Amino acid sequence: MNLRNQVESFLSDKIPLATAMGVRVVTLEPLMIEAPVALNSNHLGTAFGGSINAVATLAGYALLWLALHDDLSLHVVIAESSIHFLRPVRKTIRAICCRPEDSALTTLKSELAANNRGRIRLRVRVEESGASAAEFEGLFVAIRSK
Amino acid sequence: MNLRNQVESFLSDKIPLATAMGVRVVTLEPLMIEAPVALNSNHLGTAFGGSINAVATLAGYALLWLALHDDLSLHVVIAESSIHFLRPVRKTIRAICCRPEDSALTTLKSELAANNRGRIRLRVRVEESGASAAEFEGLFVAIRSK
Repeated sequence: MNLRNQVESFLSDKIPLATAMGVRVVTLEPLMIEAPVALNSNHLGTAFGGSINAVATLAGYALLWLALHDDLSLHVVIAESSIHFLRPVRKTIRAICCRPEDSALTTLKSELAANNRGRIRLRVRVEESGASAAEFEGLFVAIRSK
Repeated sequence: MNLRNQVESFLSDKIPLATAMGVRVVTLEPLMIEAPVALNSNHLGTAFGGSINAVATLAGYALLWLALHDDLSLHVVIAESSIHFLRPVRKTIRAICCRPEDSALTTLKSELAANNRGRIRLRVRVEESGASAAEFEGLFVAIRSK
């Protein structure tokens, strides 16, 4: 199974809501995931803000799965996040997780080596038709099981 | 149909993800909604952060539906939100939307009267077994259709 399918399987096998939202992984570079508004609509027929936030969160998880999956003793959780909604999403929620600076990944791995626990801040842009529809930032924590 | 059923129907009829998450309205005073972790689990078997955030967002919508539903020309959207996750949720995501100050609701209604648009900040506490599991704050915007 190729890496794109592996990360998509991780999301859909482990997080039932990803399946309910119709999430799929589009590309790995950049890390882009999508979900149709048809499964994620609100009272106005546009994307529900909770779905947009969930897809952005999954993009962060997917990026960290790719960065860390070689080490099976690690798991990742989210500690905090914020999101700004800029315009309605009408057809497809497309979330692109910005690749963190190499130094942020290096710090995460050093913290893990020293304390079995490391943190990283990730930014995710949600866009439609080339325009930014939401900006998400999340603080994720990787923890090594004892 | 009583008011609790009406707001629950608003959520489940208009927002398919609310049904996928198994959301139900428990009480109106305080405004409390719940969703089972069984439908909202993550790779660790606890509640997915995206689900917790979505349930908190729905609690905000529900509170504003109750405050504003007499005026059919209004709709509500979310402009921004932030959430801090404090501990894992293991069985039930329970979100309680704090009742805003009367002055905040008065300001919202004055802004609507003056500009056909008003804003209000809502806080939602997510708890399990009496302990706070997440703290959410959202800025919601009510808009009068022309």
